[in-house]
Amino acid sequence: MEFSAQQIASLIGGTVEGNPQAIVNSFAKIEEATAGSITFLANPKYNHYIYSTQASIVLVGRNLELEHPVETTLIRVDDPYATLAQLLQFAQQAMAPQLQGVEQPSFVAEDVEIPADAYIGAFAYIGTGCRIGSGVKIYPQAYVGPGVVLGDNTVVYPGAKIYHGCRIGARCIIHAGAVVGADGFGFAPTADGSYSKIPQIGIVEIHDDVEIGANTTVDRATMGATVIEQGAKLDNLIQAAHNTTIGRNTVIAAQVGIAGSTHIGANCMIGGQVGFAGHITVGDGSKFGAQSGVPNSVPAQSRLLGTPAVHERDFARQVVHVKRLGDLFDRVAKLEKVINQPQ
Amino acid sequence: MEFSAQQIASLIGGTVEGNPQAIVNSFAKIEEATAGSITFLANPKYNHYIYSTQASIVLVGRNLELEHPVETTLIRVDDPYATLAQLLQFAQQAMAPQLQGVEQPSFVAEDVEIPADAYIGAFAYIGTGCRIGSGVKIYPQAYVGPGVVLGDNTVVYPGAKIYHGCRIGARCIIHAGAVVGADGFGFAPTADGSYSKIPQIGIVEIHDDVEIGANTTVDRATMGATVIEQGAKLDNLIQAAHNTTIGRNTVIAAQVGIAGSTHIGANCMIGGQVGFAGHITVGDGSKFGAQSGVPNSVPAQSRLLGTPAVHERDFARQVVHVKRLGDLFDRVAKLEKVINQPQ
Amino acid sequence: MEFSAQQIASLIGGTVEGNPQAIVNSFAKIEEATAGSITFLANPKYNHYIYSTQASIVLVGRNLELEHPVETTLIRVDDPYATLAQLLQFAQQAMAPQLQGVEQPSFVAEDVEIPADAYIGAFAYIGTGCRIGSGVKIYPQAYVGPGVVLGDNTVVYPGAKIYHGCRIGARCIIHAGAVVGADGFGFAPTADGSYSKIPQIGIVEIHDDVEIGANTTVDRATMGATVIEQGAKLDNLIQAAHNTTIGRNTVIAAQVGIAGSTHIGANCMIGGQVGFAGHITVGDGSKFGAQSGVPNSVPAQSRLLGTPAVHERDFARQVVHVKRLGDLFDRVAKLEKVINQPQ
Repeated sequence: MEFSAQQIASLIGGTVEGNPQAIVNSFAKIEEATAGSITFLANPKYNHYIYSTQASIVLVGRNLELEHPVETTLIRVDDPYATLAQLLQFAQQAMAPQLQGVEQPSFVAEDVEIPADAYIGAFAYIGTGCRIGSGVKIYPQAYVGPGVVLGDNTVVYPGAKIYHGCRIGARCIIHAGAVVGADGFGFAPTADGSYSKIPQIGIVEIHDDVEIGANTTVDRATMGATVIEQGAKLDNLIQAAHNTTIGRNTVIAAQVGIAGSTHIGANCMIGGQVGFAGHITVGDGSKFGAQSGVPNSVPAQSRLLGTPAVHERDFARQVVHVKRLGDLFDRVAKLEKVINQPQ
Repeated sequence: MEFSAQQIASLIGGTVEGNPQAIVNSFAKIEEATAGSITFLANPKYNHYIYSTQASIVLVGRNLELEHPVETTLIRVDDPYATLAQLLQFAQQAMAPQLQGVEQPSFVAEDVEIPADAYIGAFAYIGTGCRIGSGVKIYPQAYVGPGVVLGDNTVVYPGAKIYHGCRIGARCIIHAGAVVGADGFGFAPTADGSYSKIPQIGIVEIHDDVEIGANTTVDRATMGATVIEQGAKLDNLIQAAHNTTIGRNTVIAAQVGIAGSTHIGANCMIGGQVGFAGHITVGDGSKFGAQSGVPNSVPAQSRLLGTPAVHERDFARQVVHVKRLGDLFDRVAKLEKVINQPQ
Repeated sequence: MEFSAQQIASLIGGTVEGNPQAIVNSFAKIEEATAGSITFLANPKYNHYIYSTQASIVLVGRNLELEHPVETTLIRVDDPYATLAQLLQFAQQAMAPQLQGVEQPSFVAEDVEIPADAYIGAFAYIGTGCRIGSGVKIYPQAYVGPGVVLGDNTVVYPGAKIYHGCRIGARCIIHAGAVVGADGFGFAPTADGSYSKIPQIGIVEIHDDVEIGANTTVDRATMGATVIEQGAKLDNLIQAAHNTTIGRNTVIAAQVGIAGSTHIGANCMIGGQVGFAGHITVGDGSKFGAQSGVPNSVPAQSRLLGTPAVHERDFARQVVHVKRLGDLFDRVAKLEKVINQPQ
């Protein structure tokens, strides 16, 4: 499919600067773009590419000031990144195959009703008592255990596993290999040093608009529910233990671990490989640098880094101090020499 | 199902204090409990909830002293948490569907005998030469490669993968997405900078009563066996490399990594995201705080924390010292000023 | 199968020292070997085992000097470890079942041609438009999405998932549970605090001779491609985010995380649980100790350790300094006392 600058500008409410007949048929990053592609410029660090890019069209901010003329055609918009996202969505919807119907062989329990506009891939398993929303897509080899509820337009990618009784909201995306509702890690020590398993009879509740990354694991609660609130986004290979809660619109990067019964607030941003101890509370709007270790509860709007995590400013100071420690040892030795010399 | 306080007390050998006719039909945490539920009190930090809980019955220790009367009915037992676990087990067994038989379509090699009381889910794959114990449950989409042995009453959850030749004991639980027996990570460098794969012809041996968490990976040995001993419990997303051994009743939290040929002793407790170097030995009964990095062998009963891991007491001191470093730099500067001033 | 020392020596170009009729039928590690097995000695730390090993044959270097006679038969070769790898390969090829053909039930889109020497396991899914090379093995329950290309002799183990449009080279190994091509983690914040998904329309390109470990995730690019170059080896549970590139013959241990748009050079060696920030560049031939955190770009041949990563020599010094901090505080306090005492 091809579109002209003029057509795109109309679609997204932008203003063409250059050739309204410029034609594009693909997307690219500004530094890699070739003729026939559209790109965007949102990060000022990349401004210099505007003068050399081969892209036929560039989405730019309304206020971008050019230092000299450009060869490419510009479309000025309020927010180039958000506009790009919007265009990518149009493109993806146009290109994506319209999956629908039930591929065979698949396993759908007799009592489960599959809406006409849903898709069930081959080798998918839908257990008894499930409720499958309109427009749901369950890819091949996914497992949806007995009694699971999937809200409208939720997508379960290949091989994702949802254990019995878990409830997933609308418009969620569960990526390949994610495991929702495996047993929480609970054992009671016994007199002989072995452990007795605490049955995990709770569930996982995932609210609307949540994304769960590939191979991420969200354990079911011991009792009650592990809860992921609306709009939270989890990247790949994350561990959310039993009875954790993750607040609205909180974004968590890959390989983060959250121990049992910990509550993460809303609108938090958590870097990769961060670890949270169990039974703590993280206030809303907090941010954690990658690889932080968080042993205690922290208030809203915290800005933390390091293990154990401290304010990101203090962490930066500690790093500088530790680097200069060799020098400090030398200075102290020198002082000792001066003090202790025979006078 | 409903039970009275009197019935429960008889079942578990407890003593009712309050209304023996109090009726419950669900479990809950003490702070979330509503009428009709049973809960427990084991952690003194939660003692105050006993006066406000809505639970109809609370399991408490025989020695718990009340500061004033409570509205709920108490059942006094020796160990409230262990008793709860026991009750949860009764409940789970009563509620769990009695899975049995072979769902279709599934793939069972011709030479494999499936016991009458075993369960093979749809799309499960059982390779040639497998030995499947009595009461084994293999959930949908699980893969049991050629020559695998599964002991009695072992459960393999949906999509777990067990490569050829691995041996799993009795009463083990292998959670969804776990991979047992993939190739160890072994390569020989060649003259041109590329790597030549070392075939991994060993196996994984998992003894009785082991639990392997969701998406955890346990690699097969180069030669011989990677071994997980009886009663060890592994949480989710753990990496156990080739030729590692994990001792009896050792408990490992999520996202821990154990490099090749490392031996972890018995009765250890390992926090989340800990990393162990290869070719080291960890003595029995050792404990490691979350995110520790362990570069060298450590003796039995170690208590370690940090990277590189030191005694947990030393770690606490180091953290305090590092926090006060800014102050120390200032103090040294002041001393220098005094010393160097013209007298 | 049994082989004599003489037969083996001929096969691999070695020289027998001892009994040319010594017979072996298995491989073992030198410290665990029993009669009838062949082992090797490459690490001088293990030299003492040569005098006590029960192995019938030991591969040793041409220059190994014995301190006293040995009972076992030696075969002298240039590189015992590489020779062992070669023998293991012979053994594995001889023992491995010759998988070929299409197991049923499986799902192969009508337009896909399966070469006669390829293997498609039961419950595998091959989407429309795929190109499957000669000798490819796709194990049970693997997912190969629409339009995927798999080069000759590539192996996709059980339950691995390759999303639509990704391209895998020849002789690659994708282990169980690996996910190639799930959406990159990209969201645009909106005015109300929620996030709008950036469609990820790029692909993953994996070149020849790459190994991807069990449950590792390699995300598709937002636009363009996430690229893993020839000969790179990735262990288990690694996260490679969207638009990352990993250079030729780079080796990455388990649980490493690489954030978006980061470029790792060729011939690097990366220890377990290392984290790389996004949008950075790592020069060729760099090495990173386990659990390092790398916030910035680093030049070729870097040797780094710690969080934030510093030169491994500086890290060692910092560790020593931090350990001696308690002492330094004491020394400064003593100096202060001397200075401040009334004279």
